Amino acid sequence: MIAAESAESGAPAPGALLEPARQLAEYEMLFEVGIKLSGTLDLTTVLELALEHAEHVCQAETSSIWELDEERRDLFFRVVRGRAAGAIRGMRLPLGEGIVGSVALSGEAEVVNDVGADPRWHGDPAGAFQTRAILAVPLIALGSVIGVVQLLNPVDRDRFTEGDLRRMRQFAAILAPALQNARLYAAQRRQFLSMVTSLAEALEKKDPYTRGHVRRVVGYSILLGDEMGLGRDELHDLWLAATLHDIGKIGIPDRILGKPAPLDPDEAEVMRRHTVFGAEIVTPLANPQVLVGVRNHHERLDGKGYPDGLRDPEIPLGARIIAVADTFDAMTTSRPYRAGLPGERAAAEILAGAGTQLCPRVVAAFRRLFETGRFTPEAADGFSGMLFEPALAP
Amino acid sequence: MIAAESAESGAPAPGALLEPARQLAEYEMLFEVGIKLSGTLDLTTVLELALEHAEHVCQAETSSIWELDEERRDLFFRVVRGRAAGAIRGMRLPLGEGIVGSVALSGEAEVVNDVGADPRWHGDPAGAFQTRAILAVPLIALGSVIGVVQLLNPVDRDRFTEGDLRRMRQFAAILAPALQNARLYAAQRRQFLSMVTSLAEALEKKDPYTRGHVRRVVGYSILLGDEMGLGRDELHDLWLAATLHDIGKIGIPDRILGKPAPLDPDEAEVMRRHTVFGAEIVTPLANPQVLVGVRNHHERLDGKGYPDGLRDPEIPLGARIIAVADTFDAMTTSRPYRAGLPGERAAAEILAGAGTQLCPRVVAAFRRLFETGRFTPEAADGFSGMLFEPALAP
Repeated sequence: MIAAESAESGAPAPGALLEPARQLAEYEMLFEVGIKLSGTLDLTTVLELALEHAEHVCQAETSSIWELDEERRDLFFRVVRGRAAGAIRGMRLPLGEGIVGSVALSGEAEVVNDVGADPRWHGDPAGAFQTRAILAVPLIALGSVIGVVQLLNPVDRDRFTEGDLRRMRQFAAILAPALQNARLYAAQRRQFLSMVTSLAEALEKKDPYTRGHVRRVVGYSILLGDEMGLGRDELHDLWLAATLHDIGKIGIPDRILGKPAPLDPDEAEVMRRHTVFGAEIVTPLANPQVLVGVRNHHERLDGKGYPDGLRDPEIPLGARIIAVADTFDAMTTSRPYRAGLPGERAAAEILAGAGTQLCPRVVAAFRRLFETGRFTPEAADGFSGMLFEPALAP
Repeated sequence: MIAAESAESGAPAPGALLEPARQLAEYEMLFEVGIKLSGTLDLTTVLELALEHAEHVCQAETSSIWELDEERRDLFFRVVRGRAAGAIRGMRLPLGEGIVGSVALSGEAEVVNDVGADPRWHGDPAGAFQTRAILAVPLIALGSVIGVVQLLNPVDRDRFTEGDLRRMRQFAAILAPALQNARLYAAQRRQFLSMVTSLAEALEKKDPYTRGHVRRVVGYSILLGDEMGLGRDELHDLWLAATLHDIGKIGIPDRILGKPAPLDPDEAEVMRRHTVFGAEIVTPLANPQVLVGVRNHHERLDGKGYPDGLRDPEIPLGARIIAVADTFDAMTTSRPYRAGLPGERAAAEILAGAGTQLCPRVVAAFRRLFETGRFTPEAADGFSGMLFEPALAP
């Protein structure tokens, strides 16, 4: 049996003592993957590295990492690899149900080499994939189950072995804390972002005519940034800058903020200070992109903007993007002293502003989006929350 | 030499091939400590676990973990164990200076078994400790040096061996990402906390008569919480609740917020809503302690407070603490229509309020602090930043 299994899959026999050399090789591999896993706090990266390793040490047709959603008492997953990926994407499994659900509840690893004979097995979701065998190992961090690694159908061999189980258990011991840390980091970030949103929106409530402005400007900005090909980190900074673009209004008197008429020159001068106040407020974030996004979203390419009168090449990209988003939303929203413009009219104004007020590259992205019906308040709303969703359940 | 060293310290000879059994035992130990280290994102815990392990695998008179301060271009440390601890606490070392500084700069581990003969050695700081030998290994995360593990003077043997160096290198490979993650987590938290402070203080600027109120209430609250024996996590929640206790004023009109006279009943009614607005704003933090601290800091033990009219046993501790801090600061601060009370008079009012308005246990803590001269705006100011300092340099 040892020989047969070794020839087949490199897996040792159940219960057999491993040769020290093989054991050492396994530890070396664990050591390597442990360092890789702990080298990032990014949730998706941790999960993808984990599946890569799982496939490497224990070939299976499909591998997935299920995470426990404590509140909903069910399991979901973000990443899945292999043949059944399509069929199970988006699935949620109640805690205690099926084989994965019962592993999550008991905290005990299981190998089921003939799922058909297991009363807990509910059958495959519709699709071509047929599950024969399951290996499921709980992920336990600080004494609590936080998820399950699941492999379906061993490749090039009949059944999952004791060796497979042992290797996946050792791996789960390394993966669980890495996953937990990435989840905590993401949760902390998500709390921060939603608190910032809630503050920005609370401020907005003082001026009923701008209700929803922050959310739309965030959404429009992300639409534009995405269309311009910004990466994930850049989109995150843009999200934060757009959310906080008007936070400096916290320091502007109500009588100016909520004046039901155009501002006189002195009032306008005071109002302009919101850019500088805002930049002061976000200084502790120590994020230069966010800082300039907040400070410079009212600059103009011709140097006639504020607060710094920057000219074309000096204006940071984030500020240019927020400027287009902000201008479009201001034009399409009604004020007590004027009605909002229809989208088409506002779009024509945006196009006309390219090169003097607004950045032609951003306006080009706006044009592509607008002309294909993708630059709408509804689309913006869908986009505004997108960026920090992956931090929790998908 | 192999025999001699094995007998002495269990360390293998330089360059010698390890027996697989010993190598396995080392990997098993690394595996264990790796799991422990990755099981926490708390910086101090990571560092303490690390020194414990370093001592275990490589006995030395003193061990320390230096962290690189990128901005100041120097090294500092938070934890140190062993005989020289007293002498080197609080030291900072410029990058490139001394042996640790040069290891941090080069990124290459070093054993110096006779420091006296090394031209980089500056001598020991004043004190009884005498350094003979140093083993210093860089901590490298994502290609950059983030610190150095340092051992001074091997115990029960003459010199640090190649085996010591090898084991510490392997250990550093595990420690570096764990330390980096804990630093990132702490930095993210610190950014969040300072951003929250900057927002709370920006709001305060609208009302010059309350300038410094947030900072003092935070400091007083932490003084009280510390005196009452709260743990670190509870103090963190209290810090956040006190910082945000008035954040709901973001939704109160300026004419009420800054009225240079006592409020009439209608205005007072509007003003009271800041507790409910504040609770709404902090809801995304998903922290019940912070939520009730913000919502209920104007409750009274006799049920005559707001917004919920809670009675004695229902009022959460954080809200009781903030109530004393807030009341004391309000009484001792001048308003346009009345001068602030001297501290002694305000303290008498606080004592008189115990049992009806204020919680007797909190008032007792206040009394101990006040009577020993520890309840002052200056002490509060020193305390207000204390809690999130450990997140960065000490």
